[in-house]
Amino acid sequence: MRRTAFFVSDRTGITAEILGHSLLSQFEDVNFNRITLPFVDTVQKAEEVALNIRRHAVVDGCRPLVFSTIIDPVLRKKILVEDALTIDFLEKFIGPLEEELGVESTHTVGRSHSIGNFEEYKNRIDAVNFSINHDDGIMPRDLAEADLILVGVSRSGKTPTCLYLALQFGIKAANYPLTPEDFGQHTLPRLLLPYRNKLFGLTIDPVRLQQIREERKPDSRYCSLETCQFEVAEAEALLRHVGVPYLNTTKMSIEELSTTIMHRTGIKRRTY
Amino acid sequence: MRRTAFFVSDRTGITAEILGHSLLSQFEDVNFNRITLPFVDTVQKAEEVALNIRRHAVVDGCRPLVFSTIIDPVLRKKILVEDALTIDFLEKFIGPLEEELGVESTHTVGRSHSIGNFEEYKNRIDAVNFSINHDDGIMPRDLAEADLILVGVSRSGKTPTCLYLALQFGIKAANYPLTPEDFGQHTLPRLLLPYRNKLFGLTIDPVRLQQIREERKPDSRYCSLETCQFEVAEAEALLRHVGVPYLNTTKMSIEELSTTIMHRTGIKRRTY
Repeated sequence: MRRTAFFVSDRTGITAEILGHSLLSQFEDVNFNRITLPFVDTVQKAEEVALNIRRHAVVDGCRPLVFSTIIDPVLRKKILVEDALTIDFLEKFIGPLEEELGVESTHTVGRSHSIGNFEEYKNRIDAVNFSINHDDGIMPRDLAEADLILVGVSRSGKTPTCLYLALQFGIKAANYPLTPEDFGQHTLPRLLLPYRNKLFGLTIDPVRLQQIREERKPDSRYCSLETCQFEVAEAEALLRHVGVPYLNTTKMSIEELSTTIMHRTGIKRRTY
Repeated sequence: MRRTAFFVSDRTGITAEILGHSLLSQFEDVNFNRITLPFVDTVQKAEEVALNIRRHAVVDGCRPLVFSTIIDPVLRKKILVEDALTIDFLEKFIGPLEEELGVESTHTVGRSHSIGNFEEYKNRIDAVNFSINHDDGIMPRDLAEADLILVGVSRSGKTPTCLYLALQFGIKAANYPLTPEDFGQHTLPRLLLPYRNKLFGLTIDPVRLQQIREERKPDSRYCSLETCQFEVAEAEALLRHVGVPYLNTTKMSIEELSTTIMHRTGIKRRTY
């Protein structure tokens, strides 16, 4: 049986999706049909949502789940349907917070993913531009501005991690690929020497690395298991030798990598 | 007075931060000192968190707020401190969900931002690589694979939006800058003609555009108000003429842009 789960929001739906997804991930054996309904900001749209929920209750033969972050009390009431379990994230927690803080909430729609403080927003865009302009060993003179430089063999996960750090946290993250030229010298590539304390390494299981490289350049020397084993072993030996910390990315998501690196290095987010 | 708000998690802290940030954004006049404590996965770490909370209660002279997504009931209890308001995300909602679904939750730690399904994860990384390889008018032959092609003048917000769509939703988004060469012809650039139904436009207020370009190339013709006004007017006229929908990015966050584009085009996320 398939349960329909709705994520309903007056703005982007991102908060409703993340919170709902987090709860649903605790029920691995249930098959969910996920539907996001963002920008529900008028009575008419809220009534359409209620209709949609009722329709799914009938078609599915079981009560849909509704995860809502709608702020306007009138719209909130409109989407409440008897034939569904509605989890209203704001309703549950705003009351206790108002009491604790001794002030009323502002009932402002869609604050959490709006543009907010322009300075913070600019930091974030600057970080994204920085990461793109310092991807894959491109090292212009302003590398001194980097908060972090990820190093590791080609396809170890550096680029997506840098972009995530930039987009989500406003962190300026460059990355530098360790290639066979960098091995056997027991010292960091010359370009990186001045930035030793900004370095963080990524490594990966050679078999997984081979799979990833195979998709990119099939049947090349680049993707042979032998090459992957050699590069990973040399890169790890180098990082250990020079004392640069590193993480194995094989079983980690981009989110886990990014937050673990921040946690270990103490680099703080620049934007919320 | 400054209130300390803790975001405590057994894994990345991302869900706790989003929940907390979403709630705190409803209290605009309160000054919050935000502290994220991720990877709290042992009794010892939980006890340190409790100490940290108590210390802030004393130093701040008011009760901290604690937003927690810790799953292990033993650790959950450890971080409960009398001198704080604890908002326990899972405790509130897992019960009603278990009852509704008729199954027990798996109490699995850190599922929501873990690597999950490898196929989904690969989609996401592929989308990120695609977006980087199709940034700023780089148009290799596989453009047909794009889910979406953003068009707009230089610095209208195309690149960060593409990267966000790729990272968060696994959507393959290319982008193409409209430059003075593309204007005055009342037709789309030749390269884009085969992909007309994948196009979506971004536009921007010329004064804001000038500010952004000024930071990039100060005192150039590129950043003069006249140039910005001309390019924006021509780009909008072209998009209207050929019937490509567009959004004004001036007051929108990357999240709002991305989700609005998905909403308007009907493009669905490829990954959760």
